[in-house]
Amino acid sequence: MIVAHLKPPYYAVIFTTIIEDNSKEYKKTAERMEHLAKAQDGFLGVESARSDIGITVSYWKSLEAIQHWKHHVEHSEARALGKEKWYKQYQLRICKVEREYGFKKK
Amino acid sequence: MIVAHLKPPYYAVIFTTIIEDNSKEYKKTAERMEHLAKAQDGFLGVESARSDIGITVSYWKSLEAIQHWKHHVEHSEARALGKEKWYKQYQLRICKVEREYGFKKK
Repeated sequence: MIVAHLKPPYYAVIFTTIIEDNSKEYKKTAERMEHLAKAQDGFLGVESARSDIGITVSYWKSLEAIQHWKHHVEHSEARALGKEKWYKQYQLRICKVEREYGFKKK
Repeated sequence: MIVAHLKPPYYAVIFTTIIEDNSKEYKKTAERMEHLAKAQDGFLGVESARSDIGITVSYWKSLEAIQHWKHHVEHSEARALGKEKWYKQYQLRICKVEREYGFKKK
């Protein structure tokens, strides 16, 4: 799903990953994290795609909301497991969305 | 490929798409645009994935570099064709990358 209802400024976390173990446990944890993220204060939306690499972009009201989510206990545990078991490489970028344009076919 | 060598601050363009016509012509044009983008001044890198939706994130040195690329003649023509023929929906976000963290398994 494309997130198309937001008004800048707000924040984006671009999380790009290469997985080495695409196990059931990984998928279950990724789904659980998405479910948890959606319940956090300041969460605005998420977009996700995977082919050679995975890209998940989550949108947030403020840097504080991103920090809170980073320090969430279950999220911290999942991150540690991810480094140990599932991820070969990842890059995480915290960005301020300054402008945005949308197009939708009628 | 994950882009992992950049130092904030710099800019990201998050381009999220739903395609209605995944034709050869679309793929050829998308490849040509990636090739052209890489040749622009201020281009820093690109990451791309597609499953239900496509997410392409390109990285740029400055807002001016993004504007130049936006107004590139061949890019403008491709964008017009895209709206007419290939895209059902898209969202384009211009962001300032403020912080970044990376992980790579040894």
